[in-house]
Amino acid sequence: MTFSSTLLENAVNEFAKLPGIGKKTALRLVLHQLKQSPEAVQLFADTLATMRQNIRFCTRCFNVSDGPLCNICANPQRRHSTICVVETLRDVIAIEATQQYNGAYHVLGGVISPLDGVGPDQLTIETLVERVKNDGIEELIFALNPNIQGDTTLYYIQKKLGTHPVKVTTIARGIAFGGELEYADEMTLARSLQNRMPIDAYIKSA
Amino acid sequence: MTFSSTLLENAVNEFAKLPGIGKKTALRLVLHQLKQSPEAVQLFADTLATMRQNIRFCTRCFNVSDGPLCNICANPQRRHSTICVVETLRDVIAIEATQQYNGAYHVLGGVISPLDGVGPDQLTIETLVERVKNDGIEELIFALNPNIQGDTTLYYIQKKLGTHPVKVTTIARGIAFGGELEYADEMTLARSLQNRMPIDAYIKSA
Repeated sequence: MTFSSTLLENAVNEFAKLPGIGKKTALRLVLHQLKQSPEAVQLFADTLATMRQNIRFCTRCFNVSDGPLCNICANPQRRHSTICVVETLRDVIAIEATQQYNGAYHVLGGVISPLDGVGPDQLTIETLVERVKNDGIEELIFALNPNIQGDTTLYYIQKKLGTHPVKVTTIARGIAFGGELEYADEMTLARSLQNRMPIDAYIKSA
Repeated sequence: MTFSSTLLENAVNEFAKLPGIGKKTALRLVLHQLKQSPEAVQLFADTLATMRQNIRFCTRCFNVSDGPLCNICANPQRRHSTICVVETLRDVIAIEATQQYNGAYHVLGGVISPLDGVGPDQLTIETLVERVKNDGIEELIFALNPNIQGDTTLYYIQKKLGTHPVKVTTIARGIAFGGELEYADEMTLARSLQNRMPIDAYIKSA
């Protein structure tokens, strides 16, 4: 693409660096910005730069945060004796979107995956174990992705906890709502048969 | 969506203001920025803000520009006696992308459309007529969208030019390459029959 303005070209090139944004979409976005007031575009730019400069990780749960403690860890209305263990920040946002969980989180930063060179030391497992042992944690809910790495991580953490008295659960696996039985993979279908639930509990949760 | 960080939330909200970007995509883009260095994000922000603050319109062709004259008008290698008349900046970029045109442009800023409240005075028609009459323009190529407003604008400008000696052409209308005859609209098909071209000229242009 050729541009009559280098300023415009530079802005398009910056937008085109974003994932899933090609040159044409980048141009569309920049032309939209061109129609906004200089103040509005300055606000957009400042908000983004300030976010990147000042954001940090919560010292307790490793979620992104504005201060030493994230908004969730600092909220006295939440039940801090329950920890939901997730891989990434994205998972926290997905669970928060359900509005069904009122406990705290712990972001591992990934899962144990020797093939990718990720061992327990690269994750925040040590801190999680300390939290459970020292902060009076009553329940640990694992919300890891259902694959071999997720399961390995789960077993590793459980072994680290040893005989410490804490209730450990994992989110239910099964056929998704709106999913069709015949297209479900065998593993999911097999597990959802093994872990079949009483109809009363099912009706209550609906 | 709930966020553990207000900084993150603000950035997501800013991205979600862009056209075609929903909350989920905005989050994906912001998380990508979070993975970049603070310097890279600062560059992104500065490039955008600088563009919006400093960009202006070329005093000759009304294209976006860095200085009084845009890169195209200021380029001595281009044939400035030919003007291609377009509606918007986007059209300039589309034509430049073909790499087949080496003349100058004139951006009207729209087309005459009484229903939308756009009359000749809101467009840059006056300046175009002056350019043609005073700058020794030899050819005027209309590249307006083929609809009633585009045609109205074309007739209006031609009337304004009066008997001034200048060659006036319009880009060819016809069946698009890769287009299928049976799906072409009647207007296009009818016009492409009326304006049928000698096979020799067709082969030469292929």
